[in-house]
Amino acid sequence: MPDHILKSHDSEHHRLQEEMLRMGEMAAAQLEAALDVVQRRDDKAAERIIANDEAIDALEHEVSHDVMKLALRGPLARDLREILSAIRIAADIERIGDYAANVAKRSLALNMSPPLPHVGGLHAIGTLAVKQLRDVLQAYRTNDVEAATRVRERDAEIDAAYTGLFRELLTYMMEDARAITPCTHLLFMAKNLERIGDHATNIAENVWYLVRGEETLPPRDKRDETSTTGAP
Amino acid sequence: MPDHILKSHDSEHHRLQEEMLRMGEMAAAQLEAALDVVQRRDDKAAERIIANDEAIDALEHEVSHDVMKLALRGPLARDLREILSAIRIAADIERIGDYAANVAKRSLALNMSPPLPHVGGLHAIGTLAVKQLRDVLQAYRTNDVEAATRVRERDAEIDAAYTGLFRELLTYMMEDARAITPCTHLLFMAKNLERIGDHATNIAENVWYLVRGEETLPPRDKRDETSTTGAP
Repeated sequence: MPDHILKSHDSEHHRLQEEMLRMGEMAAAQLEAALDVVQRRDDKAAERIIANDEAIDALEHEVSHDVMKLALRGPLARDLREILSAIRIAADIERIGDYAANVAKRSLALNMSPPLPHVGGLHAIGTLAVKQLRDVLQAYRTNDVEAATRVRERDAEIDAAYTGLFRELLTYMMEDARAITPCTHLLFMAKNLERIGDHATNIAENVWYLVRGEETLPPRDKRDETSTTGAP
Repeated sequence: MPDHILKSHDSEHHRLQEEMLRMGEMAAAQLEAALDVVQRRDDKAAERIIANDEAIDALEHEVSHDVMKLALRGPLARDLREILSAIRIAADIERIGDYAANVAKRSLALNMSPPLPHVGGLHAIGTLAVKQLRDVLQAYRTNDVEAATRVRERDAEIDAAYTGLFRELLTYMMEDARAITPCTHLLFMAKNLERIGDHATNIAENVWYLVRGEETLPPRDKRDETSTTGAP
Protein backbone atom coordinates (compact mmCIF):
# COMPACT_ATOMS: atom_id res chain seq x y z
CA MET A 1 0.00 0.00 0.00
CA PRO A 2 1.32 3.51 -0.72
CA ASP A 3 2.67 5.36 2.30
CA HIS A 4 0.11 8.15 2.43
CA ILE A 5 -2.76 5.68 2.41
CA LEU A 6 -1.21 3.64 5.20
CA LYS A 7 -0.73 6.84 7.13
CA SER A 8 -4.31 8.06 6.77
CA HIS A 9 -5.41 4.54 7.63
CA ASP A 10 -3.34 4.64 10.82
CA SER A 11 -4.62 8.04 11.83
CA GLU A 12 -8.21 6.87 11.33
CA HIS A 13 -7.53 3.85 13.50
CA HIS A 14 -6.15 6.20 16.07
CA ARG A 15 -9.17 8.49 15.85
CA LEU A 16 -11.45 5.49 16.24
CA GLN A 17 -9.60 4.31 19.30
CA GLU A 18 -9.82 7.79 20.81
CA GLU A 19 -13.56 7.78 20.16
CA MET A 20 -13.89 4.37 21.84
CA LEU A 21 -11.90 5.51 24.85
CA ARG A 22 -13.97 8.67 25.14
CA MET A 23 -17.05 6.50 25.15
CA GLY A 24 -15.48 4.26 27.80
CA GLU A 25 -14.64 7.24 29.95
CA MET A 26 -18.22 8.51 29.64
CA ALA A 27 -19.46 5.14 30.90
CA ALA A 28 -16.97 5.19 33.78
CA ALA A 29 -18.05 8.72 34.73
CA GLN A 30 -21.73 7.73 34.53
CA LEU A 31 -21.04 4.78 36.80
CA GLU A 32 -19.22 6.91 39.36
CA ALA A 33 -22.00 9.48 39.26
CA ALA A 34 -24.57 6.71 39.74
CA LEU A 35 -22.71 5.35 42.77
CA ASP A 36 -22.52 8.86 44.13
CA VAL A 37 -26.25 9.58 43.81
CA VAL A 38 -27.06 6.34 45.60
CA GLN A 39 -25.03 7.53 48.57
CA ARG A 40 -26.37 11.08 48.49
CA ARG A 41 -29.97 10.06 47.71
CA ASP A 42 -30.05 12.80 45.09
CA ASP A 43 -33.02 12.30 42.73
CA LYS A 44 -32.24 15.29 40.50
CA ALA A 45 -28.72 14.03 39.80
CA ALA A 46 -30.09 10.54 39.16
CA GLU A 47 -32.42 11.94 36.50
CA ARG A 48 -29.46 13.63 34.82
CA ILE A 49 -27.51 10.36 34.72
CA ILE A 50 -30.48 8.55 33.20
CA ALA A 51 -30.78 11.25 30.52
CA ASN A 52 -27.03 11.18 29.78
CA ASP A 53 -27.19 7.53 28.83
CA GLU A 54 -28.53 8.49 25.42
CA ALA A 55 -25.25 10.17 24.56
CA ILE A 56 -23.39 6.88 25.04
CA ASP A 57 -25.97 5.02 22.98
CA ALA A 58 -25.61 7.57 20.18
CA LEU A 59 -21.83 7.31 20.34
CA GLU A 60 -21.99 3.54 20.08
CA HIS A 61 -23.99 3.87 16.88
CA GLU A 62 -21.46 6.37 15.52
CA VAL A 63 -18.54 4.15 16.41
CA SER A 64 -20.10 1.10 14.74
CA HIS A 65 -20.60 3.15 11.61
CA ASP A 66 -17.07 4.48 11.59
CA VAL A 67 -15.74 1.01 12.20
CA MET A 68 -17.64 -0.35 9.25
CA LYS A 69 -16.44 2.40 6.97
CA LEU A 70 -12.92 1.55 8.03
CA ALA A 71 -13.66 -2.12 7.43
CA LEU A 72 -14.67 -1.41 3.88
CA ARG A 73 -11.20 -0.07 3.17
CA GLY A 74 -8.54 -2.10 4.93
CA PRO A 75 -8.88 -5.84 4.48
CA LEU A 76 -5.90 -7.06 6.53
CA ALA A 77 -6.15 -9.85 9.10
CA ARG A 78 -5.10 -7.55 11.92
CA ASP A 79 -7.71 -5.05 10.70
CA LEU A 80 -10.40 -7.67 10.83
CA ARG A 81 -9.54 -8.28 14.47
CA GLU A 82 -9.40 -4.57 15.18
CA ILE A 83 -12.79 -4.02 13.62
CA LEU A 84 -14.50 -6.93 15.32
CA SER A 85 -13.03 -6.10 18.70
CA ALA A 86 -13.94 -2.42 18.31
CA ILE A 87 -17.57 -3.28 17.55
CA ARG A 88 -17.77 -5.67 20.48
CA ILE A 89 -16.03 -3.34 22.91
CA ALA A 90 -18.30 -0.48 21.86
CA ALA A 91 -21.31 -2.69 22.55
CA ASP A 92 -19.91 -3.65 25.97
CA ILE A 93 -19.33 -0.02 26.87
CA GLU A 94 -22.85 0.80 25.77
CA ARG A 95 -24.21 -1.91 28.06
CA ILE A 96 -22.09 -0.65 30.95
CA GLY A 97 -23.65 2.77 30.39
CA ASP A 98 -27.10 1.18 30.51
CA TYR A 99 -26.32 -0.55 33.78
CA ALA A 100 -24.97 2.67 35.29
CA ALA A 101 -28.17 4.46 34.26
CA ASN A 102 -30.18 1.62 35.75
CA VAL A 103 -28.37 2.01 39.09
CA ALA A 104 -29.30 5.70 39.00
CA LYS A 105 -32.89 4.82 38.08
CA ARG A 106 -33.27 2.37 40.93
CA SER A 107 -31.80 4.90 43.35
CA LEU A 108 -35.00 6.89 42.76
CA ALA A 109 -37.02 3.91 43.96
CA LEU A 110 -34.64 3.35 46.86
CA ASN A 111 -35.06 6.93 48.00
CA MET A 112 -38.76 6.31 48.62
CA SER A 113 -37.79 4.15 51.63
CA PRO A 114 -35.64 5.00 54.67
CA PRO A 115 -31.86 4.55 54.11
CA LEU A 116 -30.48 1.01 54.27
CA PRO A 117 -27.20 0.06 55.94
CA HIS A 118 -26.16 -1.99 52.87
CA VAL A 119 -25.63 0.96 50.57
CA GLY A 120 -21.98 0.97 51.64
CA GLY A 121 -21.56 -2.60 50.43
CA LEU A 122 -23.08 -1.65 47.11
CA HIS A 123 -20.69 1.26 46.84
CA ALA A 124 -17.72 -1.04 47.47
CA ILE A 125 -18.76 -3.32 44.58
CA GLY A 126 -19.28 -0.26 42.40
CA THR A 127 -15.82 1.05 43.19
CA LEU A 128 -14.32 -2.29 42.13
CA ALA A 129 -16.34 -2.11 38.92
CA VAL A 130 -15.14 1.42 38.11
CA LYS A 131 -11.55 0.30 38.63
CA GLN A 132 -12.03 -2.73 36.40
CA LEU A 133 -13.49 -0.56 33.66
CA ARG A 134 -10.73 2.05 33.83
CA ASP A 135 -8.03 -0.63 33.90
CA VAL A 136 -9.41 -2.50 30.91
CA LEU A 137 -9.76 0.72 28.90
CA GLN A 138 -6.11 1.44 29.67
CA ALA A 139 -5.21 -2.12 28.56
CA TYR A 140 -7.10 -1.50 25.32
CA ARG A 141 -5.33 1.82 24.80
CA THR A 142 -1.90 0.21 25.19
CA ASN A 143 -2.66 -3.23 23.67
CA ASP A 144 -1.56 -4.70 27.00
CA VAL A 145 -2.61 -8.36 27.13
CA GLU A 146 -1.11 -8.91 30.57
CA ALA A 147 -3.09 -6.05 32.07
CA ALA A 148 -6.23 -7.31 30.31
CA THR A 149 -5.66 -10.79 31.75
CA ARG A 150 -5.35 -9.33 35.24
CA VAL A 151 -8.69 -7.50 34.84
CA ARG A 152 -10.25 -10.77 33.76
CA GLU A 153 -8.88 -12.57 36.80
CA ARG A 154 -9.96 -9.85 39.19
CA ASP A 155 -13.59 -10.25 38.12
CA ALA A 156 -13.81 -13.00 40.76
CA GLU A 157 -13.44 -10.29 43.43
CA ILE A 158 -16.55 -8.48 42.23
CA ASP A 159 -18.40 -11.76 42.07
CA ALA A 160 -17.41 -12.63 45.62
CA ALA A 161 -18.43 -9.18 46.88
CA TYR A 162 -21.73 -9.47 45.03
CA THR A 163 -22.41 -12.93 46.45
CA GLY A 164 -21.65 -11.62 49.94
CA LEU A 165 -24.01 -8.67 49.61
CA PHE A 166 -26.69 -10.85 48.04
CA ARG A 167 -26.65 -13.16 51.07
CA GLU A 168 -26.58 -10.28 53.53
CA LEU A 169 -29.58 -8.68 51.85
CA LEU A 170 -31.57 -11.91 51.87
CA THR A 171 -30.91 -12.35 55.58
CA TYR A 172 -31.94 -8.78 56.23
CA MET A 173 -35.15 -9.22 54.23
CA MET A 174 -36.04 -12.29 56.27
CA GLU A 175 -35.61 -10.33 59.48
CA ASP A 176 -37.61 -7.29 58.44
CA ALA A 177 -40.43 -7.59 55.93
CA ARG A 178 -40.61 -3.80 55.53
CA ALA A 179 -37.11 -3.89 54.03
CA ILE A 180 -38.10 -6.29 51.25
CA THR A 181 -38.98 -3.69 48.61
CA PRO A 182 -35.88 -1.49 48.97
CA CYS A 183 -33.65 -4.56 49.41
CA THR A 184 -34.98 -5.97 46.16
CA HIS A 185 -33.93 -2.79 44.40
CA LEU A 186 -30.51 -3.06 46.03
CA LEU A 187 -30.27 -6.68 44.86
CA PHE A 188 -30.89 -5.60 41.28
CA MET A 189 -28.46 -2.69 41.61
CA ALA A 190 -25.81 -5.06 42.91
CA LYS A 191 -26.55 -7.39 40.02
CA ASN A 192 -26.12 -4.46 37.61
CA LEU A 193 -22.68 -3.77 39.05
CA GLU A 194 -21.76 -7.44 38.87
CA ARG A 195 -22.81 -7.42 35.20
CA ILE A 196 -20.64 -4.35 34.60
CA GLY A 197 -17.76 -6.49 35.88
CA ASP A 198 -18.69 -9.16 33.33
CA HIS A 199 -18.63 -6.59 30.54
CA ALA A 200 -15.22 -5.34 31.67
CA THR A 201 -14.15 -8.99 31.41
CA ASN A 202 -15.60 -9.18 27.89
CA ILE A 203 -13.56 -6.12 26.96
CA ALA A 204 -10.47 -7.76 28.43
CA GLU A 205 -11.14 -10.85 26.32
CA ASN A 206 -11.47 -8.67 23.24
CA VAL A 207 -8.13 -7.02 23.97
CA TRP A 208 -6.69 -10.54 24.10
CA TYR A 209 -8.35 -11.42 20.80
CA LEU A 210 -7.15 -8.17 19.24
CA VAL A 211 -3.54 -8.89 20.12
CA ARG A 212 -3.35 -12.68 20.15
CA GLY A 213 -6.09 -13.66 17.68
CA GLU A 214 -7.69 -17.05 18.10
CA GLU A 215 -5.13 -18.26 20.66
CA THR A 216 -6.97 -19.75 23.65
CA LEU A 217 -7.30 -17.66 26.79
CA PRO A 218 -5.88 -19.06 30.05
CA PRO A 219 -8.49 -20.69 32.36
CA ARG A 220 -9.76 -18.81 35.40
CA ASP A 221 -12.02 -19.17 38.44
CA LYS A 222 -15.77 -18.98 38.13
CA ARG A 223 -18.05 -16.18 39.05
CA ASP A 224 -21.26 -15.20 40.73
CA GLU A 225 -22.53 -18.20 42.70
CA THR A 226 -25.88 -16.79 43.68
CA SER A 227 -27.72 -18.29 40.74
CA THR A 228 -26.65 -21.84 41.57
CA THR A 229 -26.67 -21.92 45.36
CA GLY A 230 -29.99 -22.35 47.03
CA ALA A 231 -28.87 -21.03 50.38
CA PRO A 232 -28.84 -17.23 50.73
CA MET B 1 -20.23 -5.73 -10.93
CA PRO B 2 -20.07 -8.87 -13.11
CA ASP B 3 -23.06 -11.18 -12.81
CA HIS B 4 -21.33 -14.18 -11.26
CA ILE B 5 -19.83 -12.02 -8.50
CA LEU B 6 -23.19 -10.48 -7.70
CA LYS B 7 -24.64 -13.95 -7.62
CA SER B 8 -22.02 -15.39 -5.26
CA HIS B 9 -22.45 -12.26 -3.16
CA ASP B 10 -26.19 -12.85 -2.96
CA SER B 11 -25.79 -16.50 -2.09
CA GLU B 12 -23.36 -15.61 0.70
CA HIS B 13 -25.82 -13.10 2.07
CA HIS B 14 -28.41 -15.81 1.97
CA ARG B 15 -26.13 -18.28 3.71
CA LEU B 16 -25.38 -15.69 6.37
CA GLN B 17 -29.05 -15.04 6.97
CA GLU B 18 -29.69 -18.77 7.25
CA GLU B 19 -26.90 -19.01 9.82
CA MET B 20 -28.40 -16.11 11.80
CA LEU B 21 -31.84 -17.68 11.74
CA ARG B 22 -30.43 -21.02 12.81
CA MET B 23 -28.80 -19.25 15.71
CA GLY B 24 -32.09 -17.51 16.53
CA GLU B 25 -33.95 -20.79 16.46
CA MET B 26 -31.36 -22.32 18.80
CA ALA B 27 -31.96 -19.46 21.25
CA ALA B 28 -35.74 -19.90 20.98
CA ALA B 29 -35.42 -23.65 21.60
CA GLN B 30 -33.12 -23.03 24.57
CA LEU B 31 -35.65 -20.61 26.00
CA GLU B 32 -38.52 -23.06 25.60
CA ALA B 33 -36.44 -25.80 27.16
CA ALA B 34 -35.54 -23.51 30.06
CA LEU B 35 -39.20 -22.67 30.67
CA ASP B 36 -39.99 -26.35 30.55
CA VAL B 37 -37.36 -27.38 33.12
CA VAL B 38 -38.61 -24.72 35.52
CA GLN B 39 -42.04 -26.33 35.40
CA ARG B 40 -40.76 -29.89 35.62
CA ARG B 41 -38.04 -29.09 38.19
CA ASP B 42 -35.65 -31.19 36.13
CA ASP B 43 -32.03 -30.48 37.17
CA LYS B 44 -30.45 -32.80 34.60
CA ALA B 45 -32.22 -31.06 31.73
CA ALA B 46 -31.27 -27.67 33.19
CA GLU B 47 -27.60 -28.69 33.14
CA ARG B 48 -27.92 -29.64 29.48
CA ILE B 49 -29.41 -26.24 28.60
CA ILE B 50 -26.60 -24.47 30.43
CA ALA B 51 -24.03 -26.52 28.51
CA ASN B 52 -25.76 -25.90 25.16
CA ASP B 53 -25.34 -22.17 25.53
CA GLU B 54 -21.74 -22.48 24.38
CA ALA B 55 -22.90 -23.56 20.94
CA ILE B 56 -24.79 -20.28 20.50
CA ASP B 57 -21.80 -18.29 21.72
CA ALA B 58 -19.56 -20.10 19.24
CA LEU B 59 -22.04 -19.48 16.43
CA GLU B 60 -22.16 -15.78 17.25
CA HIS B 61 -18.40 -15.60 16.87
CA GLU B 62 -18.60 -17.44 13.56
CA VAL B 63 -21.35 -15.18 12.28
CA SER B 64 -19.43 -12.01 13.21
CA HIS B 65 -16.43 -13.36 11.32
CA ASP B 66 -18.44 -14.25 8.24
CA VAL B 67 -20.14 -10.88 8.34
CA MET B 68 -16.81 -9.10 8.42
CA LYS B 69 -15.44 -11.13 5.55
CA LEU B 70 -18.51 -10.17 3.59
CA ALA B 71 -18.02 -6.56 4.64
CA LEU B 72 -14.54 -6.56 3.20
CA ARG B 73 -15.94 -7.33 -0.22
CA GLY B 74 -19.19 -5.47 -0.85
CA PRO B 75 -19.07 -1.77 -0.01
CA LEU B 76 -22.65 -0.75 -0.87
CA ALA B 77 -24.83 1.35 1.43
CA ARG B 78 -27.40 -1.40 1.76
CA ASP B 79 -24.56 -3.82 2.53
CA LEU B 80 -23.30 -1.60 5.29
CA ARG B 81 -26.73 -1.74 6.90
CA GLU B 82 -26.96 -5.48 6.37
CA ILE B 83 -23.60 -6.02 7.98
CA LEU B 84 -24.20 -3.77 10.96
CA SER B 85 -27.65 -5.16 11.60
CA ALA B 86 -26.38 -8.73 11.27
CA ILE B 87 -23.65 -8.13 13.84
CA ARG B 88 -26.09 -6.50 16.24
CA ILE B 89 -28.80 -9.10 15.78
CA ALA B 90 -26.26 -11.89 16.30
CA ALA B 91 -25.19 -10.22 19.56
CA ASP B 92 -28.83 -9.92 20.66
CA ILE B 93 -29.47 -13.57 19.94
CA GLU B 94 -26.37 -14.51 21.86
CA ARG B 95 -27.62 -12.52 24.87
CA ILE B 96 -31.04 -14.16 24.61
CA GLY B 97 -29.26 -17.51 24.75
CA ASP B 98 -27.41 -16.37 27.87
CA TYR B 99 -30.63 -15.34 29.56
CA ALA B 100 -32.28 -18.64 28.67
CA ALA B 101 -29.30 -20.49 30.17
CA ASN B 102 -29.55 -18.29 33.25
CA VAL B 103 -33.22 -19.21 33.69
CA ALA B 104 -32.17 -22.87 33.56
CA LYS B 105 -29.35 -22.20 36.02
CA ARG B 106 -31.60 -20.51 38.52
CA SER B 107 -34.11 -23.33 38.22
CA LEU B 108 -31.45 -25.47 39.93
CA ALA B 109 -31.48 -23.06 42.86
CA LEU B 110 -35.27 -22.92 42.82
CA ASN B 111 -35.48 -26.69 43.03
CA MET B 112 -33.77 -26.62 46.42
CA SER B 113 -36.97 -25.10 47.89
CA PRO B 114 -40.58 -26.36 47.80
CA PRO B 115 -42.51 -25.41 44.63
CA LEU B 116 -43.89 -21.86 44.43
CA PRO B 117 -47.32 -20.94 43.04
CA HIS B 118 -45.79 -18.16 40.90
CA VAL B 119 -43.99 -20.46 38.49
CA GLY B 120 -47.06 -20.31 36.26
CA GLY B 121 -46.77 -16.54 36.00
CA LEU B 122 -43.13 -16.89 35.04
CA HIS B 123 -44.08 -19.39 32.38
CA ALA B 124 -46.65 -16.99 30.94
CA ILE B 125 -44.02 -14.25 30.57
CA GLY B 126 -41.64 -16.77 29.02
CA THR B 127 -44.26 -17.86 26.50
CA LEU B 128 -44.72 -14.23 25.44
CA ALA B 129 -40.95 -13.90 25.09
CA VAL B 130 -40.67 -17.02 22.90
CA LYS B 131 -43.41 -15.66 20.65
CA GLN B 132 -41.72 -12.27 20.40
CA LEU B 133 -38.44 -13.93 19.45
CA ARG B 134 -39.98 -16.21 16.83
CA ASP B 135 -41.99 -13.32 15.36
CA VAL B 136 -39.02 -11.01 15.10
CA LEU B 137 -36.87 -13.71 13.49
CA GLN B 138 -39.62 -14.18 10.93
CA ALA B 139 -39.71 -10.40 10.36
CA TYR B 140 -35.95 -10.48 9.81
CA ARG B 141 -36.26 -13.39 7.39
CA THR B 142 -38.87 -11.55 5.29
CA ASN B 143 -37.59 -7.95 5.76
CA ASP B 144 -41.03 -7.15 7.16
CA VAL B 145 -40.91 -3.74 8.87
CA GLU B 146 -44.58 -3.83 9.83
CA ALA B 147 -44.19 -7.13 11.63
CA ALA B 148 -41.04 -5.85 13.34
CA THR B 149 -42.91 -2.75 14.50
CA ARG B 150 -45.65 -4.92 15.97
CA VAL B 151 -43.08 -6.94 17.93
CA ARG B 152 -41.63 -3.72 19.26
CA GLU B 153 -45.06 -2.49 20.35
CA ARG B 154 -45.95 -5.79 21.99
CA ASP B 155 -42.94 -5.54 24.29
CA ALA B 156 -45.15 -3.48 26.61
CA GLU B 157 -47.17 -6.66 27.29
CA ILE B 158 -44.11 -8.48 28.61
CA ASP B 159 -43.20 -5.46 30.69
CA ALA B 160 -46.69 -5.30 32.18
CA ALA B 161 -46.65 -9.03 32.95
CA TYR B 162 -43.20 -8.69 34.50
CA THR B 163 -44.27 -5.73 36.63
CA GLY B 164 -47.32 -7.69 37.79
CA LEU B 165 -45.30 -10.74 38.78
CA PHE B 166 -42.67 -8.56 40.45
CA ARG B 167 -45.30 -7.00 42.69
CA GLU B 168 -46.94 -10.32 43.43
CA LEU B 169 -43.62 -11.82 44.45
CA LEU B 170 -42.76 -8.91 46.73
CA THR B 171 -46.12 -9.25 48.48
CA TYR B 172 -45.59 -12.97 48.87
CA MET B 173 -42.13 -12.45 50.31
CA MET B 174 -43.51 -10.02 52.88
CA GLU B 175 -46.06 -12.58 53.98
CA ASP B 176 -43.69 -15.52 54.25
CA ALA B 177 -40.01 -14.98 55.06
CA ARG B 178 -39.17 -18.58 54.12
CA ALA B 179 -40.17 -17.78 50.55
CA ILE B 180 -37.66 -14.95 50.22
CA THR B 181 -34.78 -16.96 48.80
CA PRO B 182 -36.71 -18.85 46.11
CA CYS B 183 -38.76 -15.73 45.30
CA THR B 184 -35.57 -13.77 44.75
CA HIS B 185 -34.49 -16.34 42.19
CA LEU B 186 -37.88 -16.07 40.54
CA LEU B 187 -37.53 -12.27 40.46
CA PHE B 188 -34.24 -12.61 38.63
CA MET B 189 -35.67 -15.23 36.28
CA ALA B 190 -38.57 -12.94 35.48
CA LYS B 191 -36.11 -10.11 34.88
CA ASN B 192 -34.17 -12.37 32.49
CA LEU B 193 -37.34 -13.00 30.50
CA GLU B 194 -38.19 -9.30 30.48
CA ARG B 195 -34.66 -8.63 29.15
CA ILE B 196 -35.19 -11.23 26.42
CA GLY B 197 -38.19 -9.14 25.40
CA ASP B 198 -35.93 -6.08 25.23
CA HIS B 199 -33.50 -7.95 22.99
CA ALA B 200 -36.35 -9.04 20.71
CA THR B 201 -37.20 -5.33 20.53
CA ASN B 202 -33.59 -4.52 19.65
CA ILE B 203 -33.78 -7.06 16.84
CA ALA B 204 -37.02 -5.46 15.64
CA GLU B 205 -35.30 -2.06 15.61
CA ASN B 206 -32.45 -3.52 13.59
CA VAL B 207 -34.89 -4.93 11.04
CA TRP B 208 -36.26 -1.40 10.78
CA TYR B 209 -32.76 0.01 10.34
CA LEU B 210 -31.92 -2.66 7.77
CA VAL B 211 -34.91 -1.78 5.61
CA ARG B 212 -35.47 1.91 6.32
CA GLY B 213 -31.97 3.13 7.24
CA GLU B 214 -31.68 6.14 9.51
CA GLU B 215 -35.39 7.00 9.27
CA THR B 216 -36.76 7.60 12.78
CA LEU B 217 -38.78 4.86 14.41
CA PRO B 218 -42.36 5.63 15.50
CA PRO B 219 -42.75 6.41 19.24
CA ARG B 220 -44.13 3.79 21.60
CA ASP B 221 -45.13 3.20 25.23
CA LYS B 222 -42.55 2.69 27.93
CA ARG B 223 -41.54 -0.44 29.66
CA ASP B 224 -40.76 -2.11 32.94
CA GLU B 225 -41.84 0.22 35.73
CA THR B 226 -40.40 -1.75 38.61
CA SER B 227 -37.14 0.16 38.68
CA THR B 228 -38.83 3.54 39.14
CA THR B 229 -41.78 2.75 41.39
CA GLY B 230 -41.10 2.39 45.06
CA ALA B 231 -44.27 0.48 45.79
CA PRO B 232 -44.11 -3.26 45.11
